[in-house]
Amino acid sequence: MIKEFKINKVVGFGKENFSKNDNLAIEEPLEISLKIASKTGIHPLSVTMRTPGNDRDLAIGFLFTEGIINQKSNLSGKISAQVEENKLIVEFSSEFNPDLQKLKRNFYTTSSCGVCGKESIEAIKQVCKIPILKPETSVKMETLFSLTEKLLNVQKTFESTGGIHASALFDLEGNLINYREDVGRHNALDKLIGSELLKYENEDFSLKNRIVLLSGRASFELIQKCAMAGVPIICAIGAPSSLAVETAENFGITLVGFLKNGNANIYCGADKLDLNLENEN
Amino acid sequence: MIKEFKINKVVGFGKENFSKNDNLAIEEPLEISLKIASKTGIHPLSVTMRTPGNDRDLAIGFLFTEGIINQKSNLSGKISAQVEENKLIVEFSSEFNPDLQKLKRNFYTTSSCGVCGKESIEAIKQVCKIPILKPETSVKMETLFSLTEKLLNVQKTFESTGGIHASALFDLEGNLINYREDVGRHNALDKLIGSELLKYENEDFSLKNRIVLLSGRASFELIQKCAMAGVPIICAIGAPSSLAVETAENFGITLVGFLKNGNANIYCGADKLDLNLENEN
Repeated sequence: MIKEFKINKVVGFGKENFSKNDNLAIEEPLEISLKIASKTGIHPLSVTMRTPGNDRDLAIGFLFTEGIINQKSNLSGKISAQVEENKLIVEFSSEFNPDLQKLKRNFYTTSSCGVCGKESIEAIKQVCKIPILKPETSVKMETLFSLTEKLLNVQKTFESTGGIHASALFDLEGNLINYREDVGRHNALDKLIGSELLKYENEDFSLKNRIVLLSGRASFELIQKCAMAGVPIICAIGAPSSLAVETAENFGITLVGFLKNGNANIYCGADKLDLNLENEN
Repeated sequence: MIKEFKINKVVGFGKENFSKNDNLAIEEPLEISLKIASKTGIHPLSVTMRTPGNDRDLAIGFLFTEGIINQKSNLSGKISAQVEENKLIVEFSSEFNPDLQKLKRNFYTTSSCGVCGKESIEAIKQVCKIPILKPETSVKMETLFSLTEKLLNVQKTFESTGGIHASALFDLEGNLINYREDVGRHNALDKLIGSELLKYENEDFSLKNRIVLLSGRASFELIQKCAMAGVPIICAIGAPSSLAVETAENFGITLVGFLKNGNANIYCGADKLDLNLENEN
């Protein structure tokens, strides 16, 4: 996921400059195509700029968060084939037969946005089939405050390059379940959700009783992707946008921003959190 | 560009929590449509999530960096009409008649990506008609080191919300020429470029002899947009991706990253910079 470049480093307002090797996060296009049992040939869907690695998770997560697939059984047993380094073909099951024309018109993937190319504002609001369920127990604030350090402990590419986003999944006790990285924040989240979806063999997919932590800012489309997956609590290390808060509120999702150094802004859904320190002992 | 929300703020690892009003950067969809003299009706192009304000600049910049328009004379005298708060119609001149089918297939706009929805990897590399010209004089490092402070001085929304990207334009002496903000980094840059394009009445548009400063990380698509506009020097406060560096190098653009506190990483194009402190006096 990283590539070495020779750079000129200038420090101390120009007092010193020297040549050194530097690691950068890799960004490369991925072409996602579809193989649909009832149709002949391969159908190109989109090209996204992404950090190579977990390409299958990315494609599956994207197809899910865009509302194209709902569950693992929509896919063939093979799931996908990486025909070249930057070309992935997702294989649908023989029973699953989406409208290709609709796909071509409405769904596109990009480096950091999932709400793209839709030609009317109404089309942005996607149908979420998974309900947002309130967890049976409240989540302690001390649990949330522990998440950022846990993410930093595993986020090695960021340390090395300073240039990559991460999405992490925790249970309600703050145990790290899964995480994914990418130069595009929406790719990191699609990879995470796709990776989780593929774990659900015989039960309905839902990230209920899970917390998602976003390494940067929270935009509308990141909230929308979490909503698609049934995530009840979203935390971001950076700021949310106005529409991110309004969307979270609308879906009944708890949204916490600026989560770092023991501080947090709770924008909505405080009812899922236990703000009472006394109760934590 | 900001909206007030009532939030719960938790500080000191939960020791204190209180309700307060907090400002967030506004994110809302903008529907961009086209009015083409030779066709009847209005042709929807795309919906992008953006921070309201400078919508005309955004649409014009997007149409330019996607290679749809080349100059101001492609537009009608009216340029555009904002029919509703989130709906903008760009009016093409009667002589300008782009292929609508091509537009619908290839060009989409998103909150933070300009290389979107293109269905083959080859399609990503766009044709840049403006050459990247090496400025006649080298740019002093002390000039570059002065840019970030100048941006922070004018970037008021970021101070208030912590959640917005900026793109700023400087001349080779480091004087601020223009700047734009948006929740989407590619929107901030499209707004900047669109705003500049509209200044060019009778001469060919080119941002030669200009420096672009990006408030965050530098991805491929930001470099590509600058390349379309002929920008010779790009600086970013954050990290570039591998493809950002490769693209800048390919186009002969100088790319500087991690520009802050008197430090800088020069990834390529050091020949346009004066690294010699002695020469600076």
